Amino acid sequence: MLEELFAHIDAHFDAHLERVRRFVRQPSISADGTGIGQMAELLAMEIVRLGGRAEVCPTAGHPVVYGELDAGAPKTLLVYGMYDVQPVVGEVWVVPPFGGEIIDLPPHGPCLVSRGATNQKGPLACFFNVLETCRTVTGTFPVNLKLVIEGEEELGSPHLPDFIKANRARLAADAVYFPAFSQDLTGKVVMYLGVKGIVFFELVCRGGDWGGPTTRAVHGSNAVWFHSPTWRLIHALATMLTPDQKHILIDGFYDEVEPPSEEDQELLERLAATFNPETSLQAHEVRRFKYDLTGVELLKKYLYQPTLNIDGIVSGHTAEGTKTVLPHEARAKLDCRLVPRMRPDLTIRRVREHLDRHGFGDIELIVHDAYPWAKTSVRTPVVQALIRSFRELGYEPEVWPHLGGSAPFYLFTGELGLPFAMGGLGHGGRAHSPNEYATVEGMRLFEKSAVSFLCNFAAG
Amino acid sequence: MLEELFAHIDAHFDAHLERVRRFVRQPSISADGTGIGQMAELLAMEIVRLGGRAEVCPTAGHPVVYGELDAGAPKTLLVYGMYDVQPVVGEVWVVPPFGGEIIDLPPHGPCLVSRGATNQKGPLACFFNVLETCRTVTGTFPVNLKLVIEGEEELGSPHLPDFIKANRARLAADAVYFPAFSQDLTGKVVMYLGVKGIVFFELVCRGGDWGGPTTRAVHGSNAVWFHSPTWRLIHALATMLTPDQKHILIDGFYDEVEPPSEEDQELLERLAATFNPETSLQAHEVRRFKYDLTGVELLKKYLYQPTLNIDGIVSGHTAEGTKTVLPHEARAKLDCRLVPRMRPDLTIRRVREHLDRHGFGDIELIVHDAYPWAKTSVRTPVVQALIRSFRELGYEPEVWPHLGGSAPFYLFTGELGLPFAMGGLGHGGRAHSPNEYATVEGMRLFEKSAVSFLCNFAAG
Repeated sequence: MLEELFAHIDAHFDAHLERVRRFVRQPSISADGTGIGQMAELLAMEIVRLGGRAEVCPTAGHPVVYGELDAGAPKTLLVYGMYDVQPVVGEVWVVPPFGGEIIDLPPHGPCLVSRGATNQKGPLACFFNVLETCRTVTGTFPVNLKLVIEGEEELGSPHLPDFIKANRARLAADAVYFPAFSQDLTGKVVMYLGVKGIVFFELVCRGGDWGGPTTRAVHGSNAVWFHSPTWRLIHALATMLTPDQKHILIDGFYDEVEPPSEEDQELLERLAATFNPETSLQAHEVRRFKYDLTGVELLKKYLYQPTLNIDGIVSGHTAEGTKTVLPHEARAKLDCRLVPRMRPDLTIRRVREHLDRHGFGDIELIVHDAYPWAKTSVRTPVVQALIRSFRELGYEPEVWPHLGGSAPFYLFTGELGLPFAMGGLGHGGRAHSPNEYATVEGMRLFEKSAVSFLCNFAAG
Repeated sequence: MLEELFAHIDAHFDAHLERVRRFVRQPSISADGTGIGQMAELLAMEIVRLGGRAEVCPTAGHPVVYGELDAGAPKTLLVYGMYDVQPVVGEVWVVPPFGGEIIDLPPHGPCLVSRGATNQKGPLACFFNVLETCRTVTGTFPVNLKLVIEGEEELGSPHLPDFIKANRARLAADAVYFPAFSQDLTGKVVMYLGVKGIVFFELVCRGGDWGGPTTRAVHGSNAVWFHSPTWRLIHALATMLTPDQKHILIDGFYDEVEPPSEEDQELLERLAATFNPETSLQAHEVRRFKYDLTGVELLKKYLYQPTLNIDGIVSGHTAEGTKTVLPHEARAKLDCRLVPRMRPDLTIRRVREHLDRHGFGDIELIVHDAYPWAKTSVRTPVVQALIRSFRELGYEPEVWPHLGGSAPFYLFTGELGLPFAMGGLGHGGRAHSPNEYATVEGMRLFEKSAVSFLCNFAAG
């Protein structure tokens, strides 16, 4: 049966690629709403074409696309997906970012280079190809499927919680699966059993009673006797992190941070044997890590240390040329990645308290999104089914206790109480960056691993 | 004679206003070159219309407009002017910034609201009106005039030094005069006997051997183990100024700073009697000074303290919405105002040495412009002629040892060895800011004071 499914994928792969290109060519930038409605409609139509029922469910933000494909099977898989992508403002690409072009991208070979190619329209479209393959070859699906595809993942999924809570009953399932490419630059399969949480917030410093221009930038010569909101924000930020960038100086920030569990410790030790730090450096064109560590110790920093990152900062005259102004406002966007068992609410409170305690009570803190980390045990059937699918195709996965990035999977593990698994073969890169890509051959492999996973999960 | 000249100004003031509006309606943004060539041509034509010889002199940047009006008089005045203005990018105006509209601008009454209205096309156009008045009423001018009008003042006058040095012989004169509006919000005449110098530079921090992404922003989750150029620039900046923004922490920065001279000390004491700090706060919509000082002590800070101002800073994602990136570059534009007897070269060297000493040798320092301060004694004839012109119109000027702002007047005092004076009646505000303005009645007063100044200087 699996051989037949694989053969069908190979025979129809050109058509499958066209579906992927159709997905990425439809812009769907959640930050400014570009193309969001059209993308949701496109997905709903795809679900209906597979014989399912689809619904574009309004939320207070961008809609969730919900679909059901009932196979009358004993097991039900809830598939989580995202149809939104990051903005491309100010980025320089070798191809149009929404062109869906397939080009040779050394050293990766033929690649789809497009926003969303790997994060996450590429894997999502490939998963639709897999479902189509199952239906064509077998007339049905190995499991019943429930699809929850949100349009606000890149905004921190602000309205997914409402949707999940309001639809708890009809989301009943045996496990959750998130389609993604799991192979790194070298072809190694990397599996993640969880995600970090995130708090994304903005700090805004404006002139006020403390000093500084209150309504507009003024002539720069006044900096001699008026305060600067720009300097103030910089001094406030500088109190939050050591200059070596290794330690966050906010009181209590680490209070809930836990060392690896026993299961994680075992995974880490196995992981250290295959984990190659050089791959990460090369993929990001970075020359050295923040820490002079290797193996398990470097991994522990990566996975169990909270972070305080500046995503952006802006104040005053940033265009070309000289302009001497004393700005009236400075803004910085920051994110904290939350590791087990940090809590978003406590993290936000501690940032606020830190600012207040250091005399920066006037600096406004605006929380744009916040959700906790989530983890599933390696021993659950859904994770074991995914691991088997990799082995069947000749790949021994490198299993990570969790991901460095964030996704709102706490909704599934916490709200719905379900185990989850994410991944598949395939390789992509440069998520959130110019020239985001996915390899063409990787997409073919993804489809084979995903169809195998569905069969394994049904049988397991 | 003066009464006749005043009457002529009053009789032709509508036409005079039209000249001012013509000047400001022609954009001439030195930062991006918009309208620079057209503005230079406009000025050359105006000089020719006054019976003079005019030349648009090319430089390595924007041209200098040079003109000569020979009256066969014993005295020669070199008039310095600028025809460029600050950019308006990102500013919100109540009228189009290059519309030359005259509107009621409470509490100032009828005003010309336009980029350049006060800095410095307003005063420049009014001075042309004065010359036209002299010629119409008397058939000539009280003094010979040489006009040097540059198009790069807002860039820090990068090519004016070349022009001055190359034209030293034909710039021979008895003194230099810079037309400007000298009345503050309350109508008080404020005179400045000098200017501060400036160093405008950019600090650029990029990922490199020290760490951080080297070629592009990467996914923000990597901040846990890669360094951030943004944090690095912030930490570097934070080492340069105390958090209360009162003291620059760069070694040797104050080494050449001198306390007020005896003449300045006398001026300061007289000044303290009329100087009203509240006027400065109100004009800039600022609620408090950096220093809890008043009178002479506050003035000493304003005039004799060097500054380190951040004109702009930018890194990473600054558009709307959330985007989690670890930026590969952060840039800050800064300016230092140089007080007597600071030197631009030493100031730049000390910033560089400070960065190196604090381990920020990788941060690039790009100098965009740099020139020293300049001062003229209150006892020189040109200054005395200007003071007399104010008194003749019923105004006792408040005399400042120098200005808080900068202009390249060292070229005249230093390179050419000439005394200089700047100012005239009239009021304007919001230079370098949205809704820059000049009052209509102030422009009329300016013209009367300037014509009186020319007569006084000729007679003195």
